[in-house]
Amino acid sequence: MPQHPLAIKIAGLGKYLPEKIVTSAELEEQLDIPSGWVAQTTGVVSRRYASGETVSQMATSAAQSALCMAGMQPSDLDAIIGASASVQQAIPCTAAFVQRELGAPDGKSACFDINATCLGFVFALQTAVHLIAAGVYKNVLIFSSELATFSRNPKQWESAVLFGDGAAAAIVTAAQPGEASALWHSRFVTYSSGAELTQLVGGGTLHHPNDPATTPEMNMFDMDGPGVFKKAARLVPPFLDEFSKTSGIKNGDYDQVIPHQASGHGLKLLTARFGFHPERVFNHIHERGNCIAASIPLALTEAVEAGRVKRGDKVLLLGTGAGLSVGGLAFTF
Amino acid sequence: MPQHPLAIKIAGLGKYLPEKIVTSAELEEQLDIPSGWVAQTTGVVSRRYASGETVSQMATSAAQSALCMAGMQPSDLDAIIGASASVQQAIPCTAAFVQRELGAPDGKSACFDINATCLGFVFALQTAVHLIAAGVYKNVLIFSSELATFSRNPKQWESAVLFGDGAAAAIVTAAQPGEASALWHSRFVTYSSGAELTQLVGGGTLHHPNDPATTPEMNMFDMDGPGVFKKAARLVPPFLDEFSKTSGIKNGDYDQVIPHQASGHGLKLLTARFGFHPERVFNHIHERGNCIAASIPLALTEAVEAGRVKRGDKVLLLGTGAGLSVGGLAFTF
Repeated sequence: MPQHPLAIKIAGLGKYLPEKIVTSAELEEQLDIPSGWVAQTTGVVSRRYASGETVSQMATSAAQSALCMAGMQPSDLDAIIGASASVQQAIPCTAAFVQRELGAPDGKSACFDINATCLGFVFALQTAVHLIAAGVYKNVLIFSSELATFSRNPKQWESAVLFGDGAAAAIVTAAQPGEASALWHSRFVTYSSGAELTQLVGGGTLHHPNDPATTPEMNMFDMDGPGVFKKAARLVPPFLDEFSKTSGIKNGDYDQVIPHQASGHGLKLLTARFGFHPERVFNHIHERGNCIAASIPLALTEAVEAGRVKRGDKVLLLGTGAGLSVGGLAFTF
Repeated sequence: MPQHPLAIKIAGLGKYLPEKIVTSAELEEQLDIPSGWVAQTTGVVSRRYASGETVSQMATSAAQSALCMAGMQPSDLDAIIGASASVQQAIPCTAAFVQRELGAPDGKSACFDINATCLGFVFALQTAVHLIAAGVYKNVLIFSSELATFSRNPKQWESAVLFGDGAAAAIVTAAQPGEASALWHSRFVTYSSGAELTQLVGGGTLHHPNDPATTPEMNMFDMDGPGVFKKAARLVPPFLDEFSKTSGIKNGDYDQVIPHQASGHGLKLLTARFGFHPERVFNHIHERGNCIAASIPLALTEAVEAGRVKRGDKVLLLGTGAGLSVGGLAFTF
C-alpha cells in the first residue's frame, strides 16, 4: 500500500568514534593473516576500536551532538529508542541508561530498545516516524551504539577484521510548515531461511552464559560472508523493484544512497547496478568497517558533515541485516 | 496530547504454558526457605517451568493459537514482533526464528524484536497499532515468550521464587466497520533513577559472557523487591491521574484491568486503591508467577478464556518494568 509522504524531519544527527584506529596491517599481523588479504576481502583499511568506552557512553556522546544540531535539550525528548545489537546489559534496556547519562529528566521520556541487528536503526526510524505522525511523541532520540569488536572470533578471519566500534544518533521530530523534510516510504522483509548466515548463538536462552555447555565460540560472531553476499545479491534486486514501484521514486532520483556498510563487495554490487549514480552511493567502509546497526546512521551523519546530504535532498537508507532481512527507507532530509 | 480512538483490534490471542508445575512448597524445600514464606512474600503458590522448550517453540505455539482465534494463516502476517526479555540468541532477532517455525513465508513479513522487559508487549502493541493505522502493515503478530527461570539466582529468594515460564501472542489488525474495537490511549515513562532496582547486568557488553571477570551471579536476575514496590507505589498514582485525564476514561469505567503480574503486594496495591473495581482487576499470579513480558498478554489471554473480557469491553493494560518504566494502554477489545 503506498504511504503518503509524512512531514517528519531528522532534526539532528551525531556520532561518536573511539580514538583508537586499528589498521588492517595491524590485524593481519595479530591474527597471522597474509598481508593485503583484509583490504582485498572486506574493503576495510582501518576501523575504530573502543578502549574502555561503554555502549551507553558512546550513545550519550552521539546523542549530545544530535541534540546540539537539532537545537534541543535533553528535556525536550519524549522517547529514547536504543537500536543496537550491542546492549549494555540484558536488563534493563540500554535506552534507560542513556536517559540517565544524557541528563534527560527522570520520568519525562519513554525508553525501549529495538533489535534488528544491522537494520535496527532503520526499523527504529520507521517506528519513531509513525509514533510522531500519530501525535504520540514530539521529539524522539534514536541511537545505535556498537561495541562490535567485543564478540570477534579471531579464528574467523572475515568477520573478525570486518567490524568496527562506534555510535550514531538521530533526533526525529515533525517537519515545520514550509520545510521539505518528509518520509516517503519504508519497507522491510525477513527471509528466515537465511537466519544462520549471520549469527551470535550465545547471549540468550539457547546457550545461556551460565550453561556449562556454552563455549566461548558461541559468544562470538559467526558469519558466512559469501553466503550472505550470494543471498543478498539475489534478494536485493526484486526488493528494490518493489520499493521503487511502491514509493514512486526511481533509483536514479536519489540525491544520496546510504547503504549499510556490510562489506566492500556488497557496496560494489550496489554501486555497479540498479541504476544508482555511483558517485551518490555513500561508502566509508575503508575507514569505518561494519559497525552493525550504527553503520547506517554513522554513514548518514558523515554524509551530512561532508555536505553530500543537504536539506531538501532525497535520501535512501538501504541495507541487509541478520535474519536475514532486507530493508529500505526513503526520505527527504 | 489526546489521541483519537484508532479502529484497531486484537483479533487473536494465544498462550503456551509448559506442562511442569512447580509449587512453592517444592521451591521452599529446594532452596531451604522457611515453609510458607514464598506465598506470603510473593503471592505465588505455583508456576510453570519449561523442560526443554525453547523461547521460539513456546512463541510459535502461542502464535498458532492466536492465528486460529483470528481466523488467519501464517501467510497473512506482514510483521512479526518479538517482545520478550528472554531472547533465543543474541543475533538474529527471535522474531526471525518464529517466522520460520510458524511456517510464515520467507520474505513475506518484517521481523524485529522490542525489549522493554516487563512492558515489552505493551510497547510492541503501541508500535503495532500505529504502524497498522498508518497503513504500513495489515496483520501483525506480537509474541512474548519467557524462559525466566533460566536466570534465577537461588541465593536471592524473592526473585528466584517469583518467576515462571510461559508465552503469549496476539494478532493485531484493523477493526472492521461496525466493530467497537479501538485503541484509546497509551503512555509510557521511564525513571532511570530506578535502573538498578531490577537488573541482569550480564548478557551484554558491560559483562560480556567471554570476559573472565564476568561471574555466574552477573548472569542472574537481581531485584530489590521492596525498592521496586516503594518506587512504583510513589510513581503509579500520578501516572494514573495523568492517564485518566488524557484518555478521558475514569479508572472505574474499565470492564477489566490487566496488570503486570509483578508481585502479590503490587497487585494488592492496585486492587485496593485508584478507584478500580477490585473484582475487575485480573490476578493469576498465584498460579503463574511473574512471566516478565509474557505476564500481561498471558493474563489478557486467560481473562478472555475465562469470559472476563468480551468483545466491546474497555480494558486497561498496566504495568511497571525494569528501567524503571511505568506504562499503560487502554483499548476496547
